[in-house]
Amino acid sequence: MSHIDPSGAAPAPIDVPEAARWLAGRVLRTPVLRAPAIDRLAGARVLLKAENLQAGGSYKMRGGLFAVSRLAAAGHAGVVAQSTGNHAVAVALAARRFELAATVVLPVDAAPTKVARARAAGARVVLAGTTVEERLAVAGRVSDETGHPIVDAYDHPDVIAGQGSASLELIEEAERAGTPLDALVLPVGGGGGAAGACLAATGRPIEVYGVEPRGCDSLARSLAAGRPVPVTPAPTIADGLRPSCVGELPFAVLRTRLRGVVRVDDDEIVEAFRLLLLELKVLTEPSGAAGLAGALRLAADGALSVAERLPAAAAGGQRRRTVGVVLTGGNVEAQLVARLAATARLEEEVAVA
Amino acid sequence: MSHIDPSGAAPAPIDVPEAARWLAGRVLRTPVLRAPAIDRLAGARVLLKAENLQAGGSYKMRGGLFAVSRLAAAGHAGVVAQSTGNHAVAVALAARRFELAATVVLPVDAAPTKVARARAAGARVVLAGTTVEERLAVAGRVSDETGHPIVDAYDHPDVIAGQGSASLELIEEAERAGTPLDALVLPVGGGGGAAGACLAATGRPIEVYGVEPRGCDSLARSLAAGRPVPVTPAPTIADGLRPSCVGELPFAVLRTRLRGVVRVDDDEIVEAFRLLLLELKVLTEPSGAAGLAGALRLAADGALSVAERLPAAAAGGQRRRTVGVVLTGGNVEAQLVARLAATARLEEEVAVA
Repeated sequence: MSHIDPSGAAPAPIDVPEAARWLAGRVLRTPVLRAPAIDRLAGARVLLKAENLQAGGSYKMRGGLFAVSRLAAAGHAGVVAQSTGNHAVAVALAARRFELAATVVLPVDAAPTKVARARAAGARVVLAGTTVEERLAVAGRVSDETGHPIVDAYDHPDVIAGQGSASLELIEEAERAGTPLDALVLPVGGGGGAAGACLAATGRPIEVYGVEPRGCDSLARSLAAGRPVPVTPAPTIADGLRPSCVGELPFAVLRTRLRGVVRVDDDEIVEAFRLLLLELKVLTEPSGAAGLAGALRLAADGALSVAERLPAAAAGGQRRRTVGVVLTGGNVEAQLVARLAATARLEEEVAVA
Repeated sequence: MSHIDPSGAAPAPIDVPEAARWLAGRVLRTPVLRAPAIDRLAGARVLLKAENLQAGGSYKMRGGLFAVSRLAAAGHAGVVAQSTGNHAVAVALAARRFELAATVVLPVDAAPTKVARARAAGARVVLAGTTVEERLAVAGRVSDETGHPIVDAYDHPDVIAGQGSASLELIEEAERAGTPLDALVLPVGGGGGAAGACLAATGRPIEVYGVEPRGCDSLARSLAAGRPVPVTPAPTIADGLRPSCVGELPFAVLRTRLRGVVRVDDDEIVEAFRLLLLELKVLTEPSGAAGLAGALRLAADGALSVAERLPAAAAGGQRRRTVGVVLTGGNVEAQLVARLAATARLEEEVAVA
């Protein structure tokens, strides 16, 4: 996969294995976790890659670190980034590690914990508007003034390659365990993580699915139209999944390689959040739980079943379907955790399981 | 370390390395996690062994599985256990794995999630009183009636060895990473986990500390008296740490090998719970967070500092102290999570860090 630079320069390759090799030992190799209750609900073996435990609290650290390292090596003295939060935090932390200046642009309604983390990493934080267009305009001005390049949150080959390394680790760990993935499910904001997952799965019979909040479905509409289609994002609890448009570079990958997109509503995201918290014992942000919400929706729709493809005896036997899900982030406000944990329905379900 | 059986039979060895070898591949090798905010608060490198992610939701799975496997191999058709919850869940799950009948006795005020998990594992659950004495009486009657042996929650060599395997994994992983432990901190209920930790640390210069909730300090009083001293447990949020007396077998280990006991109050446990949830992104039960509460108390008291032992240059340089903490369990009610997460103090602290 190559990226055609509009300037006419040579195409920049998206090399997930190279990013994975470089990142090994530089980011946390996050664990792959399972919970019996989640397997039961999905009717499948569900392998959960806990990138919410990653340095910086999200898998964005991978792409941010890989991209910033190359800019540092190229002699840049600083970087600029915009995002709803996690990419900004990642770039801020990466810049500190390479002793570069960092300016990050977040929306005025960003999660306070994400703003605090970017500041704690030493970045200059600029709050601008509520849409990606407003942030991009500010980031562009800062880049022009400082001469520091923009590290795009998803329209950047090194960022996509870095994010893809999380999927590659999950794919390889599942293979080593003797339970190779049949499907791999990731939440979609700008599409960088899902594109990285598709590239990580290259050459393997893995169906990669993206998950979008209902009303924030630029990717689903773009796939239908055959070109990137912006949306006016609907309100969603998944603050990291509301860009107005899938990235061009991710779309170029996803349009041919993605198996499909699942839309989920906030109730499904909250249920996934609570399963992960109370059954898996890990804290995700709503965007980070959306992958599991999508996997459970796929399971409910029969998309993860192998019953129709195999003889009944085989389907009921050892050929149990294995689904990988990347839990992309865990930066969430205490107040929101308190609110989401407050319903007691889940425990009643476990009690009768 | 040997256990003198009151029946006069041969002493039963407590072999932590053997338990660790047997358990490898049979329980989850839980990750060792870190969070910069926790390191800063402790003024040390804090390695957190996430046994809250263990099968069954606590490190009790290790001792339960190891002990039950030996009883199954010896031909027993069933087992009996009593505990405030996690050991009962572990024995229930272990019995199911070996196809043994299980009866588990929990207090009438047990955490509903623990009761539900024991039932879901197929055990017969008996609720009896609120004290360990009441549960032991019922467990003894069931054992007499059924002929099934009791798997004690801590006064049992295989249980202690199994629990110790979590500490041994942490010790060895810290060594492999080039940051061997200087100290190791565990919460204390009956003392089995702390005794296992002391045995796991045998031959290494690691100071092992136990942590008791204030007013549930049987071990501290027992160490002072030189013999097991029961207490009337004070109310505590750490429901797993309120046995009325440290076990005889753990005490025999701890009296000579434990460096000390730290008492913590509920506020300190809640603060540790919130740090683990919001910074490390993992859910612990209050008892499971008590180890970190104790480590932070030790740090505040200067017990983890090396400044007084080394020249200033060395102390300020690379010789940073490394402290291991076992996060022993994560089985907690959603309502309690909601209540504990509700205060917003922590994020303000992070913002100014």
